[in-house]
Amino acid sequence: MTLRGAHILSTDDLSRERIEYLIQLAEQLVPYSQGIRITRVLEGAILANLFFEPSTRSRISFGAAFNRLGGAVRDTVGIGMSSIAKGESLRDTARVISGYADVIVMRHPEVGSVKAFAETSRVPVLNSGDGAGEHPTQALLDVFTMVRELGSVTALDGLRLTVIGDLKYGRAVHSLVRLLARFDRVHLMCVADPELQLPPAICSALRQAGHKVDQTSDVRAGLAHGDVVYATRVQEERFASPAEAKRHRGRFSIDRSLYEASAKPGAVLMHPLPRDAREGAQELSTDLDGLEQLAIFRQTDNGISMRMALFAAVLGVEDRVEETARESTWVARREL
Amino acid sequence: MTLRGAHILSTDDLSRERIEYLIQLAEQLVPYSQGIRITRVLEGAILANLFFEPSTRSRISFGAAFNRLGGAVRDTVGIGMSSIAKGESLRDTARVISGYADVIVMRHPEVGSVKAFAETSRVPVLNSGDGAGEHPTQALLDVFTMVRELGSVTALDGLRLTVIGDLKYGRAVHSLVRLLARFDRVHLMCVADPELQLPPAICSALRQAGHKVDQTSDVRAGLAHGDVVYATRVQEERFASPAEAKRHRGRFSIDRSLYEASAKPGAVLMHPLPRDAREGAQELSTDLDGLEQLAIFRQTDNGISMRMALFAAVLGVEDRVEETARESTWVARREL
Amino acid sequence: MTLRGAHILSTDDLSRERIEYLIQLAEQLVPYSQGIRITRVLEGAILANLFFEPSTRSRISFGAAFNRLGGAVRDTVGIGMSSIAKGESLRDTARVISGYADVIVMRHPEVGSVKAFAETSRVPVLNSGDGAGEHPTQALLDVFTMVRELGSVTALDGLRLTVIGDLKYGRAVHSLVRLLARFDRVHLMCVADPELQLPPAICSALRQAGHKVDQTSDVRAGLAHGDVVYATRVQEERFASPAEAKRHRGRFSIDRSLYEASAKPGAVLMHPLPRDAREGAQELSTDLDGLEQLAIFRQTDNGISMRMALFAAVLGVEDRVEETARESTWVARREL
Repeated sequence: MTLRGAHILSTDDLSRERIEYLIQLAEQLVPYSQGIRITRVLEGAILANLFFEPSTRSRISFGAAFNRLGGAVRDTVGIGMSSIAKGESLRDTARVISGYADVIVMRHPEVGSVKAFAETSRVPVLNSGDGAGEHPTQALLDVFTMVRELGSVTALDGLRLTVIGDLKYGRAVHSLVRLLARFDRVHLMCVADPELQLPPAICSALRQAGHKVDQTSDVRAGLAHGDVVYATRVQEERFASPAEAKRHRGRFSIDRSLYEASAKPGAVLMHPLPRDAREGAQELSTDLDGLEQLAIFRQTDNGISMRMALFAAVLGVEDRVEETARESTWVARREL
Repeated sequence: MTLRGAHILSTDDLSRERIEYLIQLAEQLVPYSQGIRITRVLEGAILANLFFEPSTRSRISFGAAFNRLGGAVRDTVGIGMSSIAKGESLRDTARVISGYADVIVMRHPEVGSVKAFAETSRVPVLNSGDGAGEHPTQALLDVFTMVRELGSVTALDGLRLTVIGDLKYGRAVHSLVRLLARFDRVHLMCVADPELQLPPAICSALRQAGHKVDQTSDVRAGLAHGDVVYATRVQEERFASPAEAKRHRGRFSIDRSLYEASAKPGAVLMHPLPRDAREGAQELSTDLDGLEQLAIFRQTDNGISMRMALFAAVLGVEDRVEETARESTWVARREL
Repeated sequence: MTLRGAHILSTDDLSRERIEYLIQLAEQLVPYSQGIRITRVLEGAILANLFFEPSTRSRISFGAAFNRLGGAVRDTVGIGMSSIAKGESLRDTARVISGYADVIVMRHPEVGSVKAFAETSRVPVLNSGDGAGEHPTQALLDVFTMVRELGSVTALDGLRLTVIGDLKYGRAVHSLVRLLARFDRVHLMCVADPELQLPPAICSALRQAGHKVDQTSDVRAGLAHGDVVYATRVQEERFASPAEAKRHRGRFSIDRSLYEASAKPGAVLMHPLPRDAREGAQELSTDLDGLEQLAIFRQTDNGISMRMALFAAVLGVEDRVEETARESTWVARREL
C-alpha cells in the first residue's frame, strides 16, 4: 500500500484499503501530534497552505500537522490571490505554486476548483473543501475518531450512525457518508427538516451499495438509533437569505437531559465544529461538556494526526518517521 | 522558581520573584535574541499566535521570539476568526486551538476575553493585550529595559519614574506601573491633561502599597523628576471621536532642546512605540534619535529576549537552552 | 566577491560581476530549490517578509526560498501595518523590524519607499517592488533564466531581446533592461503601442551604454527579432481608468500559429507572470503550453534558487550550504 504522489481530492480517492492504512498510520502518529514525541522527517519540506475561503481552524490544523512532521509552511489567507485578481487562471497558479512547495492544501469556494487546480500541479494536492463539494480530510478524521471511540476498525461494519442537522448543504456529512460507504452494512439515520434532508443521489448510492438509510425529523428517534450521533451546524452561509437559514437554527438542539432520556447507552456525540453557541442554536448544548461520550474535542485533536498521516503518506515518508524521532522536553498539554 | 504551565494573563500573575526570574533569564537569552547564538530547544513545538486585533509589530515580535527558540509559528491575522463568525464561543475556540499548539499568544479587543479564553485552554496562554485591559509582556520588557539601562535590578527600588501622555487609555502604562508596584518606594510622576490622567483606582493602589504618586500637566516638572521618562502616544482608537483625540495630540512633545534644558542628567527616554511621527504629534521628536539616552529601539529589541524568556519558562525548558546551542554563521546585525 | 551585509534595492546595486556571481550561485542551489537536496545553513535565522501591497506569489516565493535554506519566516500581508496607521514613520518601522529579523524583504506601493526604509534598517533589505519603481530580484531571475535557456552567460553579450506589451508601467521590464545593460551590445526591440513604449530616459541610457534600441508596434517584427521574447501583462492597476487600460488588453497576444509563423527558430518565450487568461487578453495564449520554448514556468521555478542565492549572499553563508546538506527523502516533484 502506498499513496506516494497521490492527490486527495475526493472520497473517490479513498478505497477501504487506503482508509484503513491511513487510520493505522494516524494512530501511530498520535504522540507526535500531541507534542509528546517529535520527528523531523519532513525537515526542509514546504507546504503551500492556500485558503481562498477563510477557515482559520482548518488552515491552522493543516499547518500545525505539517510543522509536527518538521516541515515549513507558507500560508495564504483571505478570499483571493492577487495574481488571480490580475486574471491568472487556476491552471497557471497551480503550475507556479507547485514549483515553490512539496505539497499543497487548498480550500476554494467553487465546487470542482481544487480538482481543476490539481490537474496542473506538479506536487500532491489535498482538498480542504471546495464550496458545497467535498472535504475528504474531515471525513477521514471523523472516521478515525469513530474507530478510536468505538475501539476498533471492525466497529465500522454494521455501524449505526445518526446524522443530524443541515444534511443538504453540510459537505462534512456528505464526505463522511461517502467514506463510510466503503465499509459493510452501515445503517444511517438522517434527522433533518424535509427541505434539508440528505440529497437523494447520496441516499440511492448508499442503498445500492448495500447500506440502510432512514430519514426522520424526530430527533428522539435519531438519538435512540445511533452508536454514533453526528450533529452539524446549519450552514447559514450557503442559504439564499439569513432569514431562511434562521428558521432552521436550533431545530435539533441536543442537551444533557435529552441525551440522557433518549440516546442509546454509551452513544458517542460528534460534531465537525464549530458549534454554534448563539442563543437558540446550540446543536450540542454546553451542558454536555463534562460528558465522557462527548467526543468533539478529541475529534478535532485527531485531525492533527490524520493530517500528519496524509502528508507522510503522499510524500512517501511514513516509514521514516521514527528515524529522526525523540521525546520532547517541554511541558505537555494538560487535560481539563 | 518555576513558571511551567502557567498562563501570563495579567500583572497579577507576576510576583516580584517571578519578575526577577524572568529578567535574569531574558538577560541570558540576549545573544540568542540577536541571532548571534542559536538554540533549537523548542524544535518541534508550535505557537498559535492569535491576533483578533491588528498589531503587526507585537505579532512579529512574539513569532520571532518563538522561532529564535527553534519552534514553529502558526499565525492568525485580521479582526476575527471565521469559526467565531459562525457562532463559536471563545471557550470552544480555546479547546480546539489548544489541541493544535503547545502555547498560545492572544490579542483581542475585549477586556477580559483573553482570561476567558485561557480557562478552557489546555496549554499556556500569554496575553498580548485585551482592549483597554492589560499587556503584561509589554510591561515585562519595559521593566527589563529599565534594569538594563540603569545597570541593575536594585535600581527599581526607589525608582523615580515619569510617565507622560495618555495615561487614561494607555494600557502599556497601566501594566507597567502595576508591575513596578512589586518593587519598593517607587516615586511616580504622572504628566497628563487632567481628563487623561492615570485612573484614580491605580493611583490609590500604588499609594496603599507604599509608593508615591504625583500628578501634573507641566512636562518640565516631569522631565526634572524622572530617572526614567516614559512617553506614550495618544490612543486615538480608544476615543469617542477623532476630533476629541486630536485635541491632545502633541500636548507633551519632547524634543532635544526641551530634554537638554529640563531633564535630569542621564535620564533614560522610553516609549512603548509606535511613536506618532505625524506633524504636531512627535511625543519624542526625531531630533532625539542620536541621543545615547534614547532607549526606545533597545527597548523593542529587548522584547524578543523577554518573550523568549516567557516561552522558555512556561514550557519549562529554560535549563535546556544551552544543550542545543551554537554560534550562528551568518552576518550579524550592524548597529546604526 | 562578497555581498555580505548588502542591501539589494535597485539594479544600481548589481554590477556585472555581482550578477554573474549570483547566477553561478543560483545554479548551484537548483537541487535545493527543488527539494531534491536540503540544507539547514540558515537554521535559526529569521526573514521578515513585509508586503505592504498584495503579491501572494512573490511573498510565497521569497518565503519558500528562505525556508529552503533552513530559516524561519515571519510574514505580513495586507496593504498596511497597524503601527504605520498609528502614525509611525518608515524609519522607525525599519529600526524596529530589523531588531526582530536577520534580513527583510519589502514590497511597498510608493516609489523610493524601500530605499528610505533600508536607510535605518540594521539588516539587509531586498526590494520586492516599490510601486512603479524597481523589482531587481525579478530582473535577476529573468537574466538567470536567459542564461539557463540559452546555455551560457556569454549568450547575454550580443543578445537579441524583444520586449512586448506595457513597457511604460511594467517595472519588471524596466529592471530587466537596466540589468542587461551591464552586458555588451544588447539589441533590444520594444513592441508596444506608442503611448505605452519604453520611457525615453531608459532608451537613452541604453543607447549611451552602447546598446541598440528599436521600437515598433508590429508584433511580427518583434517575434522575428528576438532570441528571447519577453511578453508582459498590461499593468491595469497603474492606469488612470479601467477603460483606458482595457483598450490595450490583448493588443499583442501571441498564440502558437503566430509564434510558428513569425518567431526566430528556437526563440525562448518568457513572461514575468501572472499571464492574463481572460478573454481577449492572453499575452501568451494557452495553446503554447506544450511548446518546449515556452520557458515561463521554468522562469518562476528559477526564482526560488535566485532568491536563495540572494539570501545566502547577503547573509554571507554561501560557502557553508554544503556543510549541512543531505538528500531529501520525500517524493520529488513530477514534471507534467
